[in-house]
Amino acid sequence: MCEEMFKSIIQIAIVVKDLDKAIDAWSSVLGVRPSRVTETGELEETRMRFMGSPSRGRAKLAFFNLNNIVLELIEPIDGPSTWSEFLGKYGQGLHHIAFDISDKPECIDRIIEGGGSIQQEGMFKGGRYIYIDARESLGAIIELLEHYK
Amino acid sequence: MCEEMFKSIIQIAIVVKDLDKAIDAWSSVLGVRPSRVTETGELEETRMRFMGSPSRGRAKLAFFNLNNIVLELIEPIDGPSTWSEFLGKYGQGLHHIAFDISDKPECIDRIIEGGGSIQQEGMFKGGRYIYIDARESLGAIIELLEHYK
Repeated sequence: MCEEMFKSIIQIAIVVKDLDKAIDAWSSVLGVRPSRVTETGELEETRMRFMGSPSRGRAKLAFFNLNNIVLELIEPIDGPSTWSEFLGKYGQGLHHIAFDISDKPECIDRIIEGGGSIQQEGMFKGGRYIYIDARESLGAIIELLEHYK
Repeated sequence: MCEEMFKSIIQIAIVVKDLDKAIDAWSSVLGVRPSRVTETGELEETRMRFMGSPSRGRAKLAFFNLNNIVLELIEPIDGPSTWSEFLGKYGQGLHHIAFDISDKPECIDRIIEGGGSIQQEGMFKGGRYIYIDARESLGAIIELLEHYK
């Protein structure tokens, strides 16, 4: 039942030019600092692929745990990625919404069948992610997160 | 305490070219039809202002009530608006995130002080909304919703 996977949007992510500045701006609004600030790993760990090819594109990340959802800030660094492409094309903006498909990884197909293509994928400690470019069908880039059990 | 207002993102909204197509695409993913489909009212009711001037810009709207958040789809119609400007400039995409400031309408200032300007405002039955263009500071257009008590 893929429906259950898609009943909760777990993250909303914003691509920014300068993570420190964006953290300060959001911290003033939210009254708290981010729960976690980190960077994506090197290609050797992440095996990141962007548009089908390995890429050294990386990002600095900050996460604010709100009551009902996680707000993620992303500053692209280094090589090509969905993040740097977005920033170059549109400037700062809402980049993606994320769903957790850990319980049913095959639900990726539900998004792709609806008219999306894999734009970027990679691994992080304890899981992996896939960005589906579904801007033409669903109107958004969708991230699917799988945490290994 | 404006912090409390900003601890929950209540809506995430996507601007689309064709509401019916987008409803079908999202209904396939979510396994349900939208909870509500409607249109914004005429200028005489909404008193809508876009970039400081009255505008007949309107929109068709669909709302999916997910577990933790409302997903809103917006098709711009008629005159100028934040929705039609966005669609013309970027194509389909994530347009805004919304907060409910009914308990403290003065919290609008918190967002504006952080580096935002009022892009559009208007009334709906039982309340009003303001879009703050905070793309340069917070990296997003922010909607503040006030439901009259």
